[in-house]
Amino acid sequence: MSNGNFVSILDSSLRDGAQGEGISFSLQDKISIVKALDNLGVSYIEAGNPSSNPKDAEFFKKAKSLSLNNAKLVSFGSTRRKGVSCATDEAVNALLAAETPVVSVFGKSWLAQVKKILHVTPEENLDMIRETVAFLTERGRTVLFDAEHFFDGWKQNGEYALKTLEAAVEGGASIVTLCDTKGGAMPLDVYEPVFTVVRRLVRKTEIGIHTHNDAGLAVANSLMAIHAGASHVQGTMLGFGERSGNANLSTIIANLELKLGYKCLPDGRISDLTPVCRKIAEITNISLDQGMPYIGMNAFAHKAGMHTDAVLKDSTAYEHIDPAAVGNNRVILISEVTGRSAIIEKLHSTFPEITKESPVAAKIVSRIKAMEKDGYQFEGAEGSFNLLARKILGKYKPFFSLQYYKVIGEQHVEENPATSFAQIKISVNGETTITAGEGLGPVHALDVALRSALEKFYPVVRTMRLTDFKVRVLDSKDATAAKVRVLVESTDGINMWTTVGVSTDLIEASWIALVDSFEYKLSVSS
Amino acid sequence: MSNGNFVSILDSSLRDGAQGEGISFSLQDKISIVKALDNLGVSYIEAGNPSSNPKDAEFFKKAKSLSLNNAKLVSFGSTRRKGVSCATDEAVNALLAAETPVVSVFGKSWLAQVKKILHVTPEENLDMIRETVAFLTERGRTVLFDAEHFFDGWKQNGEYALKTLEAAVEGGASIVTLCDTKGGAMPLDVYEPVFTVVRRLVRKTEIGIHTHNDAGLAVANSLMAIHAGASHVQGTMLGFGERSGNANLSTIIANLELKLGYKCLPDGRISDLTPVCRKIAEITNISLDQGMPYIGMNAFAHKAGMHTDAVLKDSTAYEHIDPAAVGNNRVILISEVTGRSAIIEKLHSTFPEITKESPVAAKIVSRIKAMEKDGYQFEGAEGSFNLLARKILGKYKPFFSLQYYKVIGEQHVEENPATSFAQIKISVNGETTITAGEGLGPVHALDVALRSALEKFYPVVRTMRLTDFKVRVLDSKDATAAKVRVLVESTDGINMWTTVGVSTDLIEASWIALVDSFEYKLSVSS
Repeated sequence: MSNGNFVSILDSSLRDGAQGEGISFSLQDKISIVKALDNLGVSYIEAGNPSSNPKDAEFFKKAKSLSLNNAKLVSFGSTRRKGVSCATDEAVNALLAAETPVVSVFGKSWLAQVKKILHVTPEENLDMIRETVAFLTERGRTVLFDAEHFFDGWKQNGEYALKTLEAAVEGGASIVTLCDTKGGAMPLDVYEPVFTVVRRLVRKTEIGIHTHNDAGLAVANSLMAIHAGASHVQGTMLGFGERSGNANLSTIIANLELKLGYKCLPDGRISDLTPVCRKIAEITNISLDQGMPYIGMNAFAHKAGMHTDAVLKDSTAYEHIDPAAVGNNRVILISEVTGRSAIIEKLHSTFPEITKESPVAAKIVSRIKAMEKDGYQFEGAEGSFNLLARKILGKYKPFFSLQYYKVIGEQHVEENPATSFAQIKISVNGETTITAGEGLGPVHALDVALRSALEKFYPVVRTMRLTDFKVRVLDSKDATAAKVRVLVESTDGINMWTTVGVSTDLIEASWIALVDSFEYKLSVSS
Repeated sequence: MSNGNFVSILDSSLRDGAQGEGISFSLQDKISIVKALDNLGVSYIEAGNPSSNPKDAEFFKKAKSLSLNNAKLVSFGSTRRKGVSCATDEAVNALLAAETPVVSVFGKSWLAQVKKILHVTPEENLDMIRETVAFLTERGRTVLFDAEHFFDGWKQNGEYALKTLEAAVEGGASIVTLCDTKGGAMPLDVYEPVFTVVRRLVRKTEIGIHTHNDAGLAVANSLMAIHAGASHVQGTMLGFGERSGNANLSTIIANLELKLGYKCLPDGRISDLTPVCRKIAEITNISLDQGMPYIGMNAFAHKAGMHTDAVLKDSTAYEHIDPAAVGNNRVILISEVTGRSAIIEKLHSTFPEITKESPVAAKIVSRIKAMEKDGYQFEGAEGSFNLLARKILGKYKPFFSLQYYKVIGEQHVEENPATSFAQIKISVNGETTITAGEGLGPVHALDVALRSALEKFYPVVRTMRLTDFKVRVLDSKDATAAKVRVLVESTDGINMWTTVGVSTDLIEASWIALVDSFEYKLSVSS
């Protein structure tokens, strides 16, 4: 039964989410995600379909020894096949064998599908639902019934769709979930059927909602169902899933808890939403959409001059919630449209002596503006930004000076693959050194050569390595003579920094970004 | 006035969208996007803020010569400053100087902000709105008024928020747009105020909606406003924008036209939605979210299993619309069957003799699959696709063979800028030639050298030139040793073709694409 303002959450990242393109979990991934979700405090974790996937069956075997604090594990499968008893149906027995406290059973609520796909009479479909739910309930399982295609069924034959729910309730289902399987429902199409179902089944079962994002409305449709009386939401924490994905639970939980007065998680857990979601993205090996509501890197990032001034004056003007409420942070981006005060704010956070009034502030701002006109972009290139400021502030002492570099790329048909060589000459405190490097491309070769030159003088560069490399062609209409901007991301195992270079020459642009990366590391280490 | 079921669309990709992280448009990018949007048929294109950004002012100067078929260009700016007249306000004059037929003026509707940020009396704010709109209207502009923070203002002091709209109407605003500036509104928070405003201002002006996606509800909130009587929607075609982005217009247009019975675009244009959106993503150089509703690569992708069988039996079971309605395609993942027939379909259109049964078809498909595994992508590289098919079909006779190329990039500190040289040796019908080229970068130098070698034998290459050059880093976690994919776009003044190269070596990848471009031209000319 619905308990006041509590909405139970079922995360299906490991089951429905695993249908998403490029998503594939190892057994260890699954266990790590279960732990992360349990920690956050969702009510149910739907972790697989033991009959359709041998890896899932193995997972459930392993999962028996897991002790969870908040969540209950759920195995997922279909109603029994036509013409057999539950006791002899392999898939139903696989659900029992999974030994999860909760079982989710899906069945058809769209009459057209009952005939076309299952090839059974409407009555046998109701029997299949009732008997399967009852079979599992009698064996001690809490049973959730997923009414597949409920909203399509509602349009075709609402009375029959309701009967499928009632069959599940007769079997003893604890929650009956209405699914927008195709993800095409509009918000107002969701409200009314849910409202009718809630009234019809009140005090007999809880009503849940399961939506997909094919019309960009999975979150909104889930909220509309809650407004209509549902008290259970299914989705995936990061919204991944087949096609356009499942309902994004991180967004739904934040909306329900912070905007609409519902409770979904144990007290205080909402402030872990961002770190838990980023951990799940890490384990799943997907790059999280930077703009993802509430939890994305840029969810509270501000770029525009006008806006950032206002945000700094009064954060309630451009932030719908305090980022800390979900464990996220405000970010001020530096860009061509950034106002002076945002740049100064950013400088101030690293060099507290710089204020709006410092004459050097104006100098830095105008230098940045000039470089931006030249194609530079310091947003996301904090390393270069910091280095530039140091140089203008007189806080930078050159570590080396370049005499020349030379890069040779060669392809002889007899040889494979093509090779690149670099030769550089630098001097450090009057001492000159020439080194060479070979690499998988010109930038790689330059990296190898520069690193080997600098290591002699600054052993600390051994701790750093490049982790990412991006090329953006500016004004690409000039084709091969166009300007390029290169971003290089580096790490020393503890910190990460990004640097930028711009030139019409790809090699020079890469070189500039590369040198900035080494200089940044040397600056902050000395 | 609202015209039956027509909803006008304002795309702000070039203005509000440019606030998004990592988004930066060149002048040429802006013009290309304006043309793409006009082609699709949106009503308004908000292209910049001429007073805040010198690049925008330059754009509007250039844009005067553009002749658009469907859309009207809009310049954007704020109401006059306090205590000055419109005639002496620089920003207002910059709006006039932009010489766009339509001007969008934003002003404050949230009383708290009027006091805290503008430091003016509530009455002066109303004067600022009324006078600015009137000043521009009197000078022949169609004026749209954007009521910033309208929904926050509504909560604090609804009467005052309404007065700001009335001031704009008194000034002659054609459309008054209610903005959820912070993006935090819930769907039911949008419906009621919009409904009230529509009733209050009916027959005096049109009502628009402008939402942000901070709560994952920008699309839903736009639809709720339409349900409440609004007839104008603002957003960005791909949903990019500051923080979590603006309302995604591609999703909204598809929902309104295909689900809710409204019209937003000229007849038949909706079926261009996917190609236009992908073109905008290309120009903006962002990788489109693969699951983006309606237009993403995976919006109609099905992973093998229960669903795909059902999709093949009956597509209405798992597809909320026919993908062709928005110019997209169904994709069956893993199951090679459909990928194969799509490739064959494509081949068949160029080489009609190739059918599903041709043994050569299987050969081409397996070669393409192998290359795709290697990082190639032939979507958008028709030139290379065509050339590859020719080669396997035996319809290609080599025009030249490479002995070697050598590229030298140099930077001596005394010299500026860095220079690149290329030397190549090729043979044509037993005759060998060595040429050299100098360029603004290694690819430019190779282009110059190869062109000069080929011209001796094939004068037709003089008619062609490269028009675009793009670099994508694949698997960028390997940093400078990562694989790169290079796309080269070429034209001979009549046709355009794109070719692709992949390698860990940036120079080699560029070389492959470059050679493909020349070979393609020579193949189709001979």
